[in-house]
Amino acid sequence: MAGSRVTLWLATGNRHKLEEARAALEPLGVAVEPLEAEKLEIQSESLEEIALFAARIAYASNPRPAVAVEDAGLFVKALNGFPGPYSSYTYKTLGVEGLLKLLEGVEDRRACFRSAVALVGPGYEKVFTGEACGFIAESPKGSQGFGFDPVFIPEGEERSFAEMSLEEKNRYSHRAKALRAAAEWLIERAEGLRGGAARRV
Amino acid sequence: MAGSRVTLWLATGNRHKLEEARAALEPLGVAVEPLEAEKLEIQSESLEEIALFAARIAYASNPRPAVAVEDAGLFVKALNGFPGPYSSYTYKTLGVEGLLKLLEGVEDRRACFRSAVALVGPGYEKVFTGEACGFIAESPKGSQGFGFDPVFIPEGEERSFAEMSLEEKNRYSHRAKALRAAAEWLIERAEGLRGGAARRV
Repeated sequence: MAGSRVTLWLATGNRHKLEEARAALEPLGVAVEPLEAEKLEIQSESLEEIALFAARIAYASNPRPAVAVEDAGLFVKALNGFPGPYSSYTYKTLGVEGLLKLLEGVEDRRACFRSAVALVGPGYEKVFTGEACGFIAESPKGSQGFGFDPVFIPEGEERSFAEMSLEEKNRYSHRAKALRAAAEWLIERAEGLRGGAARRV
Repeated sequence: MAGSRVTLWLATGNRHKLEEARAALEPLGVAVEPLEAEKLEIQSESLEEIALFAARIAYASNPRPAVAVEDAGLFVKALNGFPGPYSSYTYKTLGVEGLLKLLEGVEDRRACFRSAVALVGPGYEKVFTGEACGFIAESPKGSQGFGFDPVFIPEGEERSFAEMSLEEKNRYSHRAKALRAAAEWLIERAEGLRGGAARRV
C-alpha cells in the first residue's frame, strides 16, 4: 500500500511539536512534513479559532494537499482557564515557577491541556480537538517534553508529562488525540477519493 | 476655525478607552468617534504590530479619513514583561489579586503601562506610542479607570491610576500620550493639506 501514504504538512516552528506529531502519526501510516509558513496567530479564547485562522493563512501562501496548524494551551480550573491560549507567552515570562506561585495554597489543582488541529486543503477546512485532564503538581518533575509538561500530571498517573517518553505521553496527550483525529479523517478521505469506500462494506 | 475640526475614528469595544480618548483629545480640538469595526488582534509581543494589524483591517472594512486602534499593556519588570500584550486576558482570569500574588515577596515592583495607537487613513499608516512608568502597589486602591489601574502608581505619585480623575490620569497616561501624538500628527497633516503650513513661518 505504498501508494496510499497520506502526508500532513505541519506549520510549526516548534521542533517538539513536530517530533510529537511524527511519533503520534507514523503508527497510523501518516507522514508529517514541516511547512515553512508564516504562522499568524490571532488573540482569541478559542484554540479552534486560532488554529483555523493560522491554517487558512498558511495554506493560502503554501498550498499543499493537507496543511495543519496545531494550537494548544493549559487551562487551570482555579485560575479561570489561565494561561489557556497564552500558555507559551506565560511559560516564557513567568515559567513553571510563576504558575506554581499562582497556585500556592490553592487546593483545587485540576487542569486540562487542550489542543486544536486545523486542517486546510483544496476544498476543505476541518478542526479537530483533543484534551488531557489531570492536575498541577506541587513542584516540577522530569525533563522530557516542553513548556508546562514538568508540572502536569494526567489523571490516573503519578508521573508528569516530562517524566514520560514520547510514546507514553502520546497515550494521554491532547495534541496526539487531536492529531490522530485529523489523521484518521485524512485517511478516510484518501480512501474515499480512491473509491476505497467499497472495502468497508 | 470650525472648518478645521479633525476627527479620529476609534475602533474599540471598551467604553473606558473611548472616554479616555475623548478627555485627552477634546482639549486639542480633535473629535473622537467610535467605529463599529471588527477588531482582529494578533498574538505578538509588539503592541505596535498588534495595533497596526488591527487598524489595517478596521480601515479596510470601514474606510474613514482617520481610523485608530489602540492597544495597551502593563509590563512588569520582575515578571519579564508579563502580562504585556495579554493584560486584558490576564486581568479577566487572574485579576488584580493574581498579579499581586505573583509579586509577593518581590522587591522590584517597577512596571510600565505602554500604549500603541495605529492610525490608518487614505494613503497613510502611522503608529504612535506612549509610556507611563511607575510601580505596582502592595494592594489595590481606588475605583476609577479599569483593568490594573488600582495597583499602578505612576512615578512621582502616591495615588494609583484608579484614585485619579480622568483628567489627572491623562496627565501621566500611556494611552493619552500615544493618542495626543496621533492627534498632533493629524492636526499638522490637516494644516498641511489646507496649505496652512505657511502660518508657521
